[in-house]
Amino acid sequence: MIAGIIGAAGYGGAELVRLLSAHKQVKGFSLGSVSLEGERIENLYPNFQGIASGPLVKPEEVVAASDLVFGALPHAVGEPYAKLCRDKGISFIDLSADFRFDEDEDTYNAWYGKPFAHPELRKRSIYGLPELNREHIKELAASGPLIIANPGCYPTGASLGIFPALAKGLVSTNTIIVNSVTGITGGGREPQRAFHFPECSDSVSPYKVGAHRHTPEISRNVREMAARSGNAAPGLIFTPHLAPMNRGILSTIYIPLREEWQVASGGGVPKPPTKEIEAKSDEICQIYAAFYKDEPFVRVLPQGVFVSTGRVRHSNFCDISVHLDRRGDTLIVASAIDNMLKGASGQAVQNMNILYGFDETEGLNLVPALF
Amino acid sequence: MIAGIIGAAGYGGAELVRLLSAHKQVKGFSLGSVSLEGERIENLYPNFQGIASGPLVKPEEVVAASDLVFGALPHAVGEPYAKLCRDKGISFIDLSADFRFDEDEDTYNAWYGKPFAHPELRKRSIYGLPELNREHIKELAASGPLIIANPGCYPTGASLGIFPALAKGLVSTNTIIVNSVTGITGGGREPQRAFHFPECSDSVSPYKVGAHRHTPEISRNVREMAARSGNAAPGLIFTPHLAPMNRGILSTIYIPLREEWQVASGGGVPKPPTKEIEAKSDEICQIYAAFYKDEPFVRVLPQGVFVSTGRVRHSNFCDISVHLDRRGDTLIVASAIDNMLKGASGQAVQNMNILYGFDETEGLNLVPALF
Amino acid sequence: MIAGIIGAAGYGGAELVRLLSAHKQVKGFSLGSVSLEGERIENLYPNFQGIASGPLVKPEEVVAASDLVFGALPHAVGEPYAKLCRDKGISFIDLSADFRFDEDEDTYNAWYGKPFAHPELRKRSIYGLPELNREHIKELAASGPLIIANPGCYPTGASLGIFPALAKGLVSTNTIIVNSVTGITGGGREPQRAFHFPECSDSVSPYKVGAHRHTPEISRNVREMAARSGNAAPGLIFTPHLAPMNRGILSTIYIPLREEWQVASGGGVPKPPTKEIEAKSDEICQIYAAFYKDEPFVRVLPQGVFVSTGRVRHSNFCDISVHLDRRGDTLIVASAIDNMLKGASGQAVQNMNILYGFDETEGLNLVPALF
Amino acid sequence: MIAGIIGAAGYGGAELVRLLSAHKQVKGFSLGSVSLEGERIENLYPNFQGIASGPLVKPEEVVAASDLVFGALPHAVGEPYAKLCRDKGISFIDLSADFRFDEDEDTYNAWYGKPFAHPELRKRSIYGLPELNREHIKELAASGPLIIANPGCYPTGASLGIFPALAKGLVSTNTIIVNSVTGITGGGREPQRAFHFPECSDSVSPYKVGAHRHTPEISRNVREMAARSGNAAPGLIFTPHLAPMNRGILSTIYIPLREEWQVASGGGVPKPPTKEIEAKSDEICQIYAAFYKDEPFVRVLPQGVFVSTGRVRHSNFCDISVHLDRRGDTLIVASAIDNMLKGASGQAVQNMNILYGFDETEGLNLVPALF
Repeated sequence: MIAGIIGAAGYGGAELVRLLSAHKQVKGFSLGSVSLEGERIENLYPNFQGIASGPLVKPEEVVAASDLVFGALPHAVGEPYAKLCRDKGISFIDLSADFRFDEDEDTYNAWYGKPFAHPELRKRSIYGLPELNREHIKELAASGPLIIANPGCYPTGASLGIFPALAKGLVSTNTIIVNSVTGITGGGREPQRAFHFPECSDSVSPYKVGAHRHTPEISRNVREMAARSGNAAPGLIFTPHLAPMNRGILSTIYIPLREEWQVASGGGVPKPPTKEIEAKSDEICQIYAAFYKDEPFVRVLPQGVFVSTGRVRHSNFCDISVHLDRRGDTLIVASAIDNMLKGASGQAVQNMNILYGFDETEGLNLVPALF
Repeated sequence: MIAGIIGAAGYGGAELVRLLSAHKQVKGFSLGSVSLEGERIENLYPNFQGIASGPLVKPEEVVAASDLVFGALPHAVGEPYAKLCRDKGISFIDLSADFRFDEDEDTYNAWYGKPFAHPELRKRSIYGLPELNREHIKELAASGPLIIANPGCYPTGASLGIFPALAKGLVSTNTIIVNSVTGITGGGREPQRAFHFPECSDSVSPYKVGAHRHTPEISRNVREMAARSGNAAPGLIFTPHLAPMNRGILSTIYIPLREEWQVASGGGVPKPPTKEIEAKSDEICQIYAAFYKDEPFVRVLPQGVFVSTGRVRHSNFCDISVHLDRRGDTLIVASAIDNMLKGASGQAVQNMNILYGFDETEGLNLVPALF
Repeated sequence: MIAGIIGAAGYGGAELVRLLSAHKQVKGFSLGSVSLEGERIENLYPNFQGIASGPLVKPEEVVAASDLVFGALPHAVGEPYAKLCRDKGISFIDLSADFRFDEDEDTYNAWYGKPFAHPELRKRSIYGLPELNREHIKELAASGPLIIANPGCYPTGASLGIFPALAKGLVSTNTIIVNSVTGITGGGREPQRAFHFPECSDSVSPYKVGAHRHTPEISRNVREMAARSGNAAPGLIFTPHLAPMNRGILSTIYIPLREEWQVASGGGVPKPPTKEIEAKSDEICQIYAAFYKDEPFVRVLPQGVFVSTGRVRHSNFCDISVHLDRRGDTLIVASAIDNMLKGASGQAVQNMNILYGFDETEGLNLVPALF
Repeated sequence: MIAGIIGAAGYGGAELVRLLSAHKQVKGFSLGSVSLEGERIENLYPNFQGIASGPLVKPEEVVAASDLVFGALPHAVGEPYAKLCRDKGISFIDLSADFRFDEDEDTYNAWYGKPFAHPELRKRSIYGLPELNREHIKELAASGPLIIANPGCYPTGASLGIFPALAKGLVSTNTIIVNSVTGITGGGREPQRAFHFPECSDSVSPYKVGAHRHTPEISRNVREMAARSGNAAPGLIFTPHLAPMNRGILSTIYIPLREEWQVASGGGVPKPPTKEIEAKSDEICQIYAAFYKDEPFVRVLPQGVFVSTGRVRHSNFCDISVHLDRRGDTLIVASAIDNMLKGASGQAVQNMNILYGFDETEGLNLVPALF
């Protein structure tokens, strides 16, 4: 297979080049760029010296040369190329937000400030979070080429941390709070003051509080899982932060429990967690572990071990740890992913594997690097 | 004045040496250690070469030689020296948790696993968060030497972020969630695997979820401010995290608003913040700014500017930014401090200044270093 | 093949587990430890959760269970296990310094403070720098099991930067200066004050100036290459430094040129490099490129591109850039490796591949991660 | 005194604001910018919130409003303002390279690509390295306003490391090699790809090898000290590198000794340092200590202690450690400075203090921060 990548100059595109270089089914690349046509990939990424080389071509040439195209572009840029792919009869895996809201143009437009360019493309598009939609993708793929909307980085880690509790009916209708911290590669390749080393190293800060575009995407996943499992959807607050690391997203998720899942704690002056709290915490941890037992890329950690972005670095894993707060009414779930892998390019390869019926871990059998 | 520091070998003690070296009222030091007696401070801290030198002495010698003693020790170690100070008739500023719970031995014992060694010392001790207790400290100081319980690092930033909303009656009785991230100096000077560079750099992780000892201390402050202002105390969840930076604590605080302070948002699919949300956010921001307008070390940032630990680094400031979530029912307050300064040794110097009637900013007139 | 690793709890051993997990010829592991027998590898390295698990066994059990054994131990600890391997008739790839000096016990003893435990083992040992000894290893391997002395991290990068100039007769008999900077993983897994995050982050420092144990190893390689190419051996100064990064060694190497290779510069007040300097620089760069043209893991960068440890991170590459100083008499070569890969475990796998006649890049076909 | 700063938006200018805020003799500021006129300093630097505020003015207004002007500008931009100051009859302390070469326009032009705009200004300019020119500055200042050329960051640390050996006649006429590593603030405030966090964190790299503009400046200092002490000037090679830290320059300096200062080492296979080597190393260390014994900002460390940029961070110190290489013919001197302080703005304040006869440490009495 020839894999096309439009937007190969960006971090998401370059990570795709890196991953697909080791993918058994990929025999060659067509690398393109909207704005850097003619630039050589090995000059943009000197780490590719001797591995990938040659000038970036026009997006149209990528479509013409490829059997499958990845769009690693900002939102509202890639839709014409998705259409070209459909016209040619090949699939398009889109790392932008353009197809993540299915036919809900209003929500997309409200947060991204653009109407759909080709609304009809949504007839053959699907949200590509494998743990949510694996079977749907397979079914749809049986009837021809698809557009897969690869999920956002924050929504991936947040949704995977919420799904089991929601699906199993543990969650009340109150508000879930997702407090997330990302590494700096989340900001992309273009130099900006916020990502200038002296400004962001040795510092942590929140940004776009109460107003980040991934909020409606997390919400769509929460509402979909609630609907599928016959539960009411809770509210959602999402707050992103920036931390001085290259890769990784940690989401700390506060999930209000239904009364029947709570452990009475008595209130008043705080006391350390009781045995009842620990037992319930363990019970819920096992529910999580059972929920994900067949998932190749989700690891539910044993009680007492906390996730850490460093322990999933350079892998496609989403690690999850589960804790019942000492007050007994709130589940605190922490999830960790590598934002460039499970949060972007790794998940895109996973979607490709599902789409083509390859082994889902092909090209992604990566042991996390401790350092 | 001769300032004594017991525990000068630790990070908190060494930072006191650094700060007090520039304090006009401090004419000399007596530096002591419980476990490293005889070690020279300039060998332990080569940055002190030519600035502070000489062997650490026994704690008893520190008390004998000093006009005021700082205890920069682990909990349950310094109480005998607090007693020695009282017997000698001098004040003791304690950076440990030993005196933070006033006479509530049960709570201290439940979380720290030790009974009080000298319970009677609490008759002359006070919790030294200046923004809460400045006037009490001054009153008590008028009648003789004191023990000041210097607040914990997390409780300082968290409490300052909660106080205005609570005092002004904005907060419902639901649960406040404090999600905090600390730099690695928070773990102290002793090498441990969790703070070994390759294990903690380039990684963010939660720890002691639902079980951190600073939980009851934040709660004491919340309950005290609630009581003083005639409001009911909300519940509290506190989750600490570790980030790869030297200094700094960022606390992101989710405060449920009373119904009369909420802005109706309609629920359903998330929409970006409306003008009503922004106006209310601005109103609450001004309440915060007014609350702290005379505080020398609290800066409430204008709407749209987010706090960052890097912008208070090497200063005694607590920066606060205030945001109303797009859903209209939750206030999201972010506070940033330098954990070694406002979170520990800087605040101890501030307490010394209050205790002695010095200018409260003496020795602390530090411009934050951007890098 | 069952691969045994003694010292699997250390960083070198754990990196071997990671690499060999993806090696086609390795069907299983036997993981052992001298001091942590019984500890589970997935507890020591939570990143291995779901990938490698089980308790570490005694070194003797590793030897008994394996077809090949890697020793990832401190010096003077592994020799008895090398002997066990020899007695069993299997090969031993040693990541320590024990076999790096062949039969020169005096030099080993002078720098490492131990006599050889089993001097006779050197009859079947060889220094495993593939770019120097590939053919020797293959020849020796034809006649039975071997002990391969895997090179030190600094000597690998330094030697590869020196070899082409030396082999091609460019180097005068004056002193070569190797100025190297390593990441913190070079210090191993045990927490120490020097590697405690607050002490080493945001700081660069030299250590063991003029007295580092890798000096005689670099010297042995320089003398060997000089002897093989019929050139006189220059002197050597080596200075190591520590920098706040996880992985990587950068060596900046100052090589005095023979008079016939120098470009006259005139002396006096410094002037920017002339065209003659640039032309000669380019000529020497091409000599380097030609020297390494068949090496799978050495990349000589084009003129004007400088090496960076970040661009070989997580790969087995040694990148080299070559520059003639503006004064015309000194070649400045910079080499960059990942100290955990080409500087340790990656090179050990490369040696395994050579020893067994596998494709030399098997398990090492890693694209460097830019971040 | 009203202190003017042209270029207050850059890192050097902002650091001057920070330092001068605590300077007893400075009663007010006039902050200006060539390109960002009208921008508010507290918006550019949110860490200044509540400390310094107001819009940046035109450079001409700065000159008009001030008693002394600092130029914190790129080279070839500030000369007209130096002239304005001279015309007004006030002094100008220039952080750029424009006045560092005295009347040697050829060298300046060769490396900086510009002729002097006002050559006559050099009649009243002086190179402001206090350890070299303190008395000259004082003498010149007696006869009226001056232009002080504040030294470059690399030249400061390198020159201070070389001076004692050179002045005391220890150095042969061979080449001195200066291998330096700088933190990222050395690259200034403007975002660039090389300083984008994901590109430079966790990586070390050389740049401008054999071609950096600070080469002729280090050379001028070496030649001047040689001339003053009646010794011949050695050659010079200078190589800069970038490391992932905010502040700091470490220079490792290889100084060839005159024969009478060498210790015979025998050559051949390297041996660890002998007692003779250690004794001579100690002797030279004492020569260094004696040379700088009255300098307020140079600390010569005792034998066995190595400098570290982290230990001078946030101070105006230059730390120096001295080591004789095991081969006995090369002195290895390491110097560490904070590039923003002794390497730029701190030294500018030191020059102001000398110029006005203030206590030389006024505003600079900073204890280095270990973290």
